Amino acid sequence: MSGFPKILESTQDLSKGQISTLISMAKSLKEGQNTPFFFDQDKRPFLATLFLENSTRTKTSFAIAAQKLGAHYIDFDVSTSSLKKGESLEETLLTLKYQGVNACVIRTPNSGELAQFKKDPPLCIINGGDGTNQHPTQALLDLFTLYELGLDPQGKTFAIIGDIAHSRVASSLVDLLTRFGGKIVFCGPKECLPKSVSGPVMLTESLDEALELCDVIYTLRIQKERHTGPTPYYDSYHKLYGLNLQKMQGLKKAPVILHPGPVNIGVELSKDLVRSPFYKGYEQVINSIYMRMAIISATLGN
Amino acid sequence: MSGFPKILESTQDLSKGQISTLISMAKSLKEGQNTPFFFDQDKRPFLATLFLENSTRTKTSFAIAAQKLGAHYIDFDVSTSSLKKGESLEETLLTLKYQGVNACVIRTPNSGELAQFKKDPPLCIINGGDGTNQHPTQALLDLFTLYELGLDPQGKTFAIIGDIAHSRVASSLVDLLTRFGGKIVFCGPKECLPKSVSGPVMLTESLDEALELCDVIYTLRIQKERHTGPTPYYDSYHKLYGLNLQKMQGLKKAPVILHPGPVNIGVELSKDLVRSPFYKGYEQVINSIYMRMAIISATLGN
Amino acid sequence: MSGFPKILESTQDLSKGQISTLISMAKSLKEGQNTPFFFDQDKRPFLATLFLENSTRTKTSFAIAAQKLGAHYIDFDVSTSSLKKGESLEETLLTLKYQGVNACVIRTPNSGELAQFKKDPPLCIINGGDGTNQHPTQALLDLFTLYELGLDPQGKTFAIIGDIAHSRVASSLVDLLTRFGGKIVFCGPKECLPKSVSGPVMLTESLDEALELCDVIYTLRIQKERHTGPTPYYDSYHKLYGLNLQKMQGLKKAPVILHPGPVNIGVELSKDLVRSPFYKGYEQVINSIYMRMAIISATLGN
Repeated sequence: MSGFPKILESTQDLSKGQISTLISMAKSLKEGQNTPFFFDQDKRPFLATLFLENSTRTKTSFAIAAQKLGAHYIDFDVSTSSLKKGESLEETLLTLKYQGVNACVIRTPNSGELAQFKKDPPLCIINGGDGTNQHPTQALLDLFTLYELGLDPQGKTFAIIGDIAHSRVASSLVDLLTRFGGKIVFCGPKECLPKSVSGPVMLTESLDEALELCDVIYTLRIQKERHTGPTPYYDSYHKLYGLNLQKMQGLKKAPVILHPGPVNIGVELSKDLVRSPFYKGYEQVINSIYMRMAIISATLGN
Repeated sequence: MSGFPKILESTQDLSKGQISTLISMAKSLKEGQNTPFFFDQDKRPFLATLFLENSTRTKTSFAIAAQKLGAHYIDFDVSTSSLKKGESLEETLLTLKYQGVNACVIRTPNSGELAQFKKDPPLCIINGGDGTNQHPTQALLDLFTLYELGLDPQGKTFAIIGDIAHSRVASSLVDLLTRFGGKIVFCGPKECLPKSVSGPVMLTESLDEALELCDVIYTLRIQKERHTGPTPYYDSYHKLYGLNLQKMQGLKKAPVILHPGPVNIGVELSKDLVRSPFYKGYEQVINSIYMRMAIISATLGN
Repeated sequence: MSGFPKILESTQDLSKGQISTLISMAKSLKEGQNTPFFFDQDKRPFLATLFLENSTRTKTSFAIAAQKLGAHYIDFDVSTSSLKKGESLEETLLTLKYQGVNACVIRTPNSGELAQFKKDPPLCIINGGDGTNQHPTQALLDLFTLYELGLDPQGKTFAIIGDIAHSRVASSLVDLLTRFGGKIVFCGPKECLPKSVSGPVMLTESLDEALELCDVIYTLRIQKERHTGPTPYYDSYHKLYGLNLQKMQGLKKAPVILHPGPVNIGVELSKDLVRSPFYKGYEQVINSIYMRMAIISATLGN
């Protein structure tokens, strides 16, 4: 795609036109229309993943997407690398570049760490999640999923439920949804909500209020493995903010439920709900491959 | 192969006809006759390995088999995955399925863990060893090796020597050998023998008796790395149940020796024996690739 | 290449003619002239890496080189393998051989460990660095880089600066450079210099003397992560032996600087120097791929 950024750090790096083109590309790829996104056998590019935080799910998704496009895939194993001996991320990326890697998906625990490469990226970079800042490929696949489900964000209300204040997914998603005409209701316990909001976004601690207002529910993963001390809100989370099939069947509307995965079954969502037609999380997983194929193709084709 | 099970949990999932077909397929693949088991370049399936117990040897064998067939290969790295954060195996397999993985080889320390998927497997599953229960691909490659060596099990006696009570290889192997007409002698120290046996199987603590009766010797790996406390039988194992070249040359018959590997050289078998024509363990390694190619091809072609 | 050794343990395993042929092959590969080094799609060999010491950089370089040639690539994960349970390296290599692996790149902390395979290698072996002994592929790519820079070693003087006494890179490099007519100046603190030298090699503790004499500077990595006790020479290293842009600009000649990487920026070399035209380390990284492609091709084509 002409003009596609060499580094995709944030959803804000993309114009609405570019986002719509990515969605069209992902749709074509899902429908099996290959041309012209695929790489020739004799010009196969190399895509690398460099994950400074664990995530087998996202890494596997990029690995499959790259290989389906005909690219070579390399996982740069951080645990055995010079990064562990103090080499800077910049030097590591320069090495990958000169070794012939064309694009690198980076996940890092440090919010904003990729901003240093915006001016002059050593190679194509795709942000695979940076701290609590941004997770643009997740939000793009979520938006693609909404269109696939016939849910154009224009004029619709999205309840985002959970630890919003610390969620990079929420940051990227809210940017996309509001730019495409959606309204947002953030819902969760007080310590999980941002202090202030702007634009078409409201806050509520009441799950019932959020459910009444929304057309679509987006639940966030409660990161229980990060809780070490007392967890006042976690222990009561399912009771206060968790959803189950009975609760959903009692609503006047029948909003679909998205979740970036992996779900803590029995915390954010009950097992019967995950197995019901309300839950569209598996559609997100399917679409993750096609949206990431589109992003890789656009990044490498620029 | 029409009717091939979507999940291969146990050798008992296969009919004798299906087993014979697998052996024919493996033989054709070994002889370089490709058609029609290979995957087209534009329809390359994805095979994943998901190993909850370490085994580089078996994992590498499946990786090579998959790639020789033209499939994409993905190792799902359990150590960095959501499984470590409490996600269920079922949810992980659903994610792999919806990401586009067609078949998954699973190794697990939990005997019978894969039985939960028999009714409605989320994707094709191949048991790569589950606890002390089953290791069907090992037994199938062993049976293939026997036929390659001209040793039809019908009417032959197989001495299985070592820690039989805890061996998943022995479970799978005895099922195959007895269904194809073989007789079994289990041999080892008392604590390594099953309490009772049925069918054409006998027990002995005498190595000399086992050697006298058998046409083929199958030695099992003593898992010395699992011994933490006192190991009364391990310390004397080589003296009482280990084999060396001199002992073999003293026998009236010249039975071949199989071993699923890796051998503890100097424990089950001496180094001179492993380097002698009695030892057919390297034939098993060669055949592991072709049998696993056959199994992958049959699983994905069903 | 006819007569190319099945095991490349040391630069001494290669004749000058073979080295020159490798350089020609690497040059052709870099210029995009494919024939006849590449592997047919239906006869793709398997290259494995088996690294008993960590090095993501070198491993990735071999992985990319193998895949650019059309070979399959397998990383044999030592940490989960039977090697950890006491299996010998020989048995592991025999398993890889019989599984169908054609060549294995081995890195080991044990100097000379690969010598045991010289008489009858179980499969093709490429030394990826063994203890303080040899690192032949690094030295070959360095020599290739010199020719690419128009720096035929004949009659030139090379200052090798750093911990020479413990450097496998230095051992391999000095062999190549002196055989191709170069002269060597070893420079570093006393504890880093060899006790004695022979041939066209001299020793000095004076950086200024080394810089005055040399046409090319080759800096070695100070392995700070290996220092646990007091490090008298490390703490003052940058002051006494480190190079920066100002120092280089003050020299009468303008020698290029090579480094096998990763550089400790601020120790061996300053950041401004690494970003200046003096530094040719990124050329080495580029050339690493083409030289390793040439080595793999020659090894597998013998």
